[in-house]
Amino acid sequence: MNILIVLAHPDRASFNHALAAAAAQASRGQGHAVVLHDLYAEAFDPILPAGEFSKKARLEPSLCRYCDELAAADGIVVIHPNWWGQPPAILKGWVDRVVRPGVAYAFEEGDSGEGVPVGLLRARTALVLNTSNTPAPREQQVFGDPLESIWKRCVFDLCGVKDVRRRTYSVVATSTPEMRRRWLADAVDLVSSAFPPGAGAPGMPR
Amino acid sequence: MNILIVLAHPDRASFNHALAAAAAQASRGQGHAVVLHDLYAEAFDPILPAGEFSKKARLEPSLCRYCDELAAADGIVVIHPNWWGQPPAILKGWVDRVVRPGVAYAFEEGDSGEGVPVGLLRARTALVLNTSNTPAPREQQVFGDPLESIWKRCVFDLCGVKDVRRRTYSVVATSTPEMRRRWLADAVDLVSSAFPPGAGAPGMPR
Repeated sequence: MNILIVLAHPDRASFNHALAAAAAQASRGQGHAVVLHDLYAEAFDPILPAGEFSKKARLEPSLCRYCDELAAADGIVVIHPNWWGQPPAILKGWVDRVVRPGVAYAFEEGDSGEGVPVGLLRARTALVLNTSNTPAPREQQVFGDPLESIWKRCVFDLCGVKDVRRRTYSVVATSTPEMRRRWLADAVDLVSSAFPPGAGAPGMPR
Repeated sequence: MNILIVLAHPDRASFNHALAAAAAQASRGQGHAVVLHDLYAEAFDPILPAGEFSKKARLEPSLCRYCDELAAADGIVVIHPNWWGQPPAILKGWVDRVVRPGVAYAFEEGDSGEGVPVGLLRARTALVLNTSNTPAPREQQVFGDPLESIWKRCVFDLCGVKDVRRRTYSVVATSTPEMRRRWLADAVDLVSSAFPPGAGAPGMPR
């Protein structure tokens, strides 16, 4: 399988980075090929210009590479902190620019853009790993945990990825080294069970 | 009143821009002072660096200005398209960087960052104007409309802005000039009733 890992956190010493390294290692341990994008380290430009709206827009080569890798992924892992119930802006911009028409979804012929698109991604399973400084009950009750709808319903389901698994590790700010070790082990288990060895997309090549 | 309008859309000919112009005109018509930030036109940098996490971080002057204007606002209007149940990345980054500790919220003394912050904004009312190409029932039922929680619960309520009003104009892609005229008139009504003449924050100056 091709596993695409997308990471968004500004601090290389962050627990998010540790999660990404663990996810990459676990994926490789299952025999998969891994592409890991550390969006901050790559200085990804998150600003969608008006000229990229159209499905037929001519994209800069660096953006094409991100799109090609998303299209080629058999499994996707997204890793980011919960900032305001949303991903950091740099990752939001990856969604805005890379998860684009013709790559991740398409409208039916003759649609004016108001219809129901068809998902195009070959990945069947995505894993979302979040960190947070808000205890889980408060996230649910006070904030409504919009990240759950954002990733499962707004992004992945629309693009045809129906099996979306999500875990939030919290509270990071007050966590002990032992808690973080357990969380990393949990992330490895999640990756290993989401993307088992030899489990390419059914009927490959597609 | 000081009315802060924050706009995020890449196309200057967009209906979002028309909404922002109408909101500014309506606010001025009520006798208010208006600051309008067209984040795309200003090339706002949405990337929060690790060095800005701390409440005591030294900020670049251009960012300080955004923060000062937010702190000085008696009323806030946010205008953006619904992209993936979220604001465009450039506006998400405005939240990440400008809606910051010491400006918009504060933790109690001795808190390690996991506690319940106190809202600091002087604005009592915010208005969120969205555009969408998804019909309202589908937004609610299929996507769960995360923007509702994002703005009302995750952002504004946490910062002390308790009266948050939101309108989504859809479907823009198939709208007629007559529909857009009605939507603009509706936006003017919303602004006028949210920020009536002579309605500064109670007990000013604070």
